[in-house]
Amino acid sequence: MEARPLDALSRARDKRVIVELKNGKQYIGLLKSFDIHINVVLEDAEERQNGELQRKLGIVFLRGDTITIISAA
Amino acid sequence: MEARPLDALSRARDKRVIVELKNGKQYIGLLKSFDIHINVVLEDAEERQNGELQRKLGIVFLRGDTITIISAA
Amino acid sequence: MEARPLDALSRARDKRVIVELKNGKQYIGLLKSFDIHINVVLEDAEERQNGELQRKLGIVFLRGDTITIISAA
Amino acid sequence: MEARPLDALSRARDKRVIVELKNGKQYIGLLKSFDIHINVVLEDAEERQNGELQRKLGIVFLRGDTITIISAA
Amino acid sequence: MEARPLDALSRARDKRVIVELKNGKQYIGLLKSFDIHINVVLEDAEERQNGELQRKLGIVFLRGDTITIISAA
Amino acid sequence: MEARPLDALSRARDKRVIVELKNGKQYIGLLKSFDIHINVVLEDAEERQNGELQRKLGIVFLRGDTITIISAA
Amino acid sequence: MEARPLDALSRARDKRVIVELKNGKQYIGLLKSFDIHINVVLEDAEERQNGELQRKLGIVFLRGDTITIISAA
Repeated sequence: MEARPLDALSRARDKRVIVELKNGKQYIGLLKSFDIHINVVLEDAEERQNGELQRKLGIVFLRGDTITIISAA
Repeated sequence: MEARPLDALSRARDKRVIVELKNGKQYIGLLKSFDIHINVVLEDAEERQNGELQRKLGIVFLRGDTITIISAA
Repeated sequence: MEARPLDALSRARDKRVIVELKNGKQYIGLLKSFDIHINVVLEDAEERQNGELQRKLGIVFLRGDTITIISAA
Repeated sequence: MEARPLDALSRARDKRVIVELKNGKQYIGLLKSFDIHINVVLEDAEERQNGELQRKLGIVFLRGDTITIISAA
Repeated sequence: MEARPLDALSRARDKRVIVELKNGKQYIGLLKSFDIHINVVLEDAEERQNGELQRKLGIVFLRGDTITIISAA
Repeated sequence: MEARPLDALSRARDKRVIVELKNGKQYIGLLKSFDIHINVVLEDAEERQNGELQRKLGIVFLRGDTITIISAA
Repeated sequence: MEARPLDALSRARDKRVIVELKNGKQYIGLLKSFDIHINVVLEDAEERQNGELQRKLGIVFLRGDTITIISAA
């Protein structure tokens, strides 16, 4: 069975992922939802920059347009 | 029930949120409305940069295209 | 009744607003019209940068794509 | 009667306008035509930068995507 | 008869034009074709930067998205 | 038979590819899937910058909008 | 017969072309395929920057969005 990229995101649901933005910031949290624009919602999220924790954010909505990559945390 | 990213914004309606823009500015206020482009309207809003209050704005319309993340205030 | 972001712009029609662009310039004037792309026309407008008046412009057409936020003047 | 932003451009047809681009250049000339993408054609146009005349251009086609504002000259 | 912006490009077909890109480069050549995205093909083209000839290119395809203005050479 | 660009990606499926992003980072891994937006999923991936290994990533989702080129590893 | 821009690319098929990207890199190779987004596949390709050979790439997929111009090699 041939997978599509969004299937990989579906399999990551409710798991911890790292979402990286064009501005260099990283958001680590539980992947709760995403859509075809790759808008993403993380739960229990934190923001890191250059590997350092910046803030605890709880639930965060990330606009797809600003995202570069998503990987497992 | 599987949520979509915009559902997270719906649940934040009438609550205080922080909206961050590509230019680094933050807008904190009551989330009054949003649409599929993630255009957002905040009420009783203020602008901050580098953590410092810049201006009191009242009602502010934020173009979705400039938004990076939205989180609870 | 749940409002949409463009409703906030409709209520601002014929009132003085501040439109801010990605290039940092501000345009202050009477909001005469806007469309779904957030193209905006101001009347009796002036341009400011870093809080200083740059020019009187009369009627000005602002392309939505360049706008970051719109607030009450 | 409620105006739309493009109506303001229609009223400026055959009048002298200043079109400003994201790269900071200004084009001053007679507004001959425009479309919904805000592609614009000026006649008898000149290019200015930092207020100084750069070139006489005659007819010039300006891609909408690069335009920030259009005002009366 | 009210013209549209693309009509001005049609009238420039087989004439020498200057196409300027967002990266500051200029391409001068015979306008052979264009489409609604303002993709452009020039023949007998040369590349200039800061007014200086860089290269002779023959036929060149220019992506519309990178074009700022097109004027008569 | 005339090939389309996505056919070249299809033939690279399950092979090692290098995906390069606008921010200069490279991702090397097995091409598992892609879509018409050129969203890409790599398996057994690693991140490199300036030729140096940065991180082991396992499965990674890369947004098409940020990709410049894809070649064989 | 009036040509369209993509016709010029069709005539370049299986010929050596230079594809230039927004990041300043050049890719020289046989044009194997392209689509309406100007996604391009080159065969027997090499990467150059500032006129200097960087890498031999074999088959390379170039995202249209990052391309500025395509000319004969």
